[in-house]
Amino acid sequence: MITNRTARVLLLPRCRPVRCNRQLYRDFRSSHGVKERQSPPVDGLQANVSGTQLKIVEPTPSSLRPYSSIFHRPKEDHFSENVAKTLCPESFEELLPHIDTFIFDADGVLWLGDEVIPGSPRLIDFLVKNNKRVLMLTNNATKSRALIAEKIARLGYSPELNKDTVVNPAAVIADSLYRAGFAGYKKVYLIGSQGVRDEMDALGLEYFGHGPEPLDPSDERTYVHDVKMEDHTKVGAVVVGYEKHFNVSKLVKAANYLKQPHCLFLATNEDETCPSPDPNLIIPDAGPIVAAVRCASGREPLTIGKPNSPIFDFIRRRWNIDPERTMMIGDRTNTDVKFGRDHGMRTLLVLSGCHQIEDIMENHRNGLLDMVPDFIATCLGALLLPQRKN
Amino acid sequence: MITNRTARVLLLPRCRPVRCNRQLYRDFRSSHGVKERQSPPVDGLQANVSGTQLKIVEPTPSSLRPYSSIFHRPKEDHFSENVAKTLCPESFEELLPHIDTFIFDADGVLWLGDEVIPGSPRLIDFLVKNNKRVLMLTNNATKSRALIAEKIARLGYSPELNKDTVVNPAAVIADSLYRAGFAGYKKVYLIGSQGVRDEMDALGLEYFGHGPEPLDPSDERTYVHDVKMEDHTKVGAVVVGYEKHFNVSKLVKAANYLKQPHCLFLATNEDETCPSPDPNLIIPDAGPIVAAVRCASGREPLTIGKPNSPIFDFIRRRWNIDPERTMMIGDRTNTDVKFGRDHGMRTLLVLSGCHQIEDIMENHRNGLLDMVPDFIATCLGALLLPQRKN
Repeated sequence: MITNRTARVLLLPRCRPVRCNRQLYRDFRSSHGVKERQSPPVDGLQANVSGTQLKIVEPTPSSLRPYSSIFHRPKEDHFSENVAKTLCPESFEELLPHIDTFIFDADGVLWLGDEVIPGSPRLIDFLVKNNKRVLMLTNNATKSRALIAEKIARLGYSPELNKDTVVNPAAVIADSLYRAGFAGYKKVYLIGSQGVRDEMDALGLEYFGHGPEPLDPSDERTYVHDVKMEDHTKVGAVVVGYEKHFNVSKLVKAANYLKQPHCLFLATNEDETCPSPDPNLIIPDAGPIVAAVRCASGREPLTIGKPNSPIFDFIRRRWNIDPERTMMIGDRTNTDVKFGRDHGMRTLLVLSGCHQIEDIMENHRNGLLDMVPDFIATCLGALLLPQRKN
Repeated sequence: MITNRTARVLLLPRCRPVRCNRQLYRDFRSSHGVKERQSPPVDGLQANVSGTQLKIVEPTPSSLRPYSSIFHRPKEDHFSENVAKTLCPESFEELLPHIDTFIFDADGVLWLGDEVIPGSPRLIDFLVKNNKRVLMLTNNATKSRALIAEKIARLGYSPELNKDTVVNPAAVIADSLYRAGFAGYKKVYLIGSQGVRDEMDALGLEYFGHGPEPLDPSDERTYVHDVKMEDHTKVGAVVVGYEKHFNVSKLVKAANYLKQPHCLFLATNEDETCPSPDPNLIIPDAGPIVAAVRCASGREPLTIGKPNSPIFDFIRRRWNIDPERTMMIGDRTNTDVKFGRDHGMRTLLVLSGCHQIEDIMENHRNGLLDMVPDFIATCLGALLLPQRKN
């Protein structure tokens, strides 16, 4: 049941109408898969654990709904302004003098896949014109900052968002290892993509292990025994991120390098899935790969990306930001909002990406206040008055 | 410090001396890798999370000790007979009339790798002669029961231990799906090895997806998008166990079949590592693969193997055992002992495999009483008086 109050909030009555690409948003959300740890409570699904009596459940029209619609169905909550304030052009203008730095997540905030979110470039331009610092912070470590900056420019964003104002875990990992003295001294066993490789190259760090890994295709030996390991005294760290070539042979190597207590274990990020160009396809991100290495090695990684502290420390060190005068803007409560809250920043959730009002309400109900933003808005464009037509 | 009391227990003074292959045991234990979730507390290892200031730590003689010796160093605990009773030939004889069924784990109890544990075949013979039921229960789902039975015979065990008295998760999964009506009706997406395949073949179950999976070797596309999925309405279950060909393409497929709420998610077992012929090499088992699929799909599997209930239900149904008159004998507190305790059986931990007295004491200290056995013994042979020499 959508109450009058909920409906009012969803339509953002205090803001003037904003043209948002709703279909794009819907596709995007359904492409984000499911985060819940429990099997969904679908009528008739019977996996009786105590009796191990499995029953086949025919897909019904309801069980065939996309996952997102099952989990993101409108709740009967009354959305309350006491939970998170809705930002509109007027209230945003009041807030502006109190913020020096705006940190933007990318996917779901600035763009959706390869398409710009209408209104977002204009907000960045507005902030730059008002002498605000703008930074982009993404958990995507598969691309280097240089490649991400190319996309930013291609989509028509202000040149203030560029290679030097973009932060991702690839850059932070390379920086951390460089400052720890790895260059010319220790090697890194890498499960990772172009982003980490290029950022490490830029700092002269030596790494190995990435790329396609041959595996005996026969069934003669059940397990993978015949891995060629490098001298473990020279391997100072195992870095794990998303790599499409990840396989059991790489898992064996990572677990065995990590057997050495002096070998550091760094993970780029632990997002379970990433946005997919096909909204019907779940695309795993680094999370599942990190989970496998964690399980096999029995070691806990130092995870760099949001919502963790290493990437915040990098930002604070580089730009000397004052968290109280900084706003973190993202589309996910569990990464962006939690990251902002955990590090003393103001937080704004835009509804143009992954999480929605019902997710905020659920977090609030469950006492997960570090995943409840200070502010919400439909999208970045909703923070400005519409442009006058000439 | 080994106290007099500890020393007495370790030497099992109430039992007559038993010839145990101690070197074999030591190699075996060190091949089991590490289960702890935290990085080991090695002097000088600095991964300052709040400051992300990593420091290189040179391997020192102490940090180069094999992991097992770091974690399994003798504790200063006084081992108490109140925690677990030591079984010797006399006390075992007293216990015998109260037990009808003995369930044996395999690796570390009956054999170590490819070598029989001296004294174990004789105990099985003794029990068979005394009209006890003997069953073998292993979490190894990579081999079918028929192949496991071949090994049992090759190592000289009583023919009472055979294909029909062996239980493993492969057999239970096939049985469960068969009884659920999958045969000729629903297909199974399988990440698994010969064991699950052969057991499914035997019951006429249809499966697909196993074996080497091609992957575009180029770096042109970062993520794996181009997977060919079967009609999801015909896929009734995803079964995940150890398969050396597991890779990102299989991960994508498993996660996407599991997007359908009607698709069951079964895991053979979740052991992190398995015994390795090379004691210096960690060999991941099914656990890391299940962890990856769990993370990518957001679904919780029904895990069949010890210490979970599905495999117990299978045994109780097939042999109508009385748990109170059944003894579970194994070498691991977290699988064998927990399995026995959770299902109302008596439990015996033999010290000829993975876990030792200090592990029991640690579990006891941490209140993990479901991982503290009723009884301990150095090995199965220690339960019988030595054979008289002619």
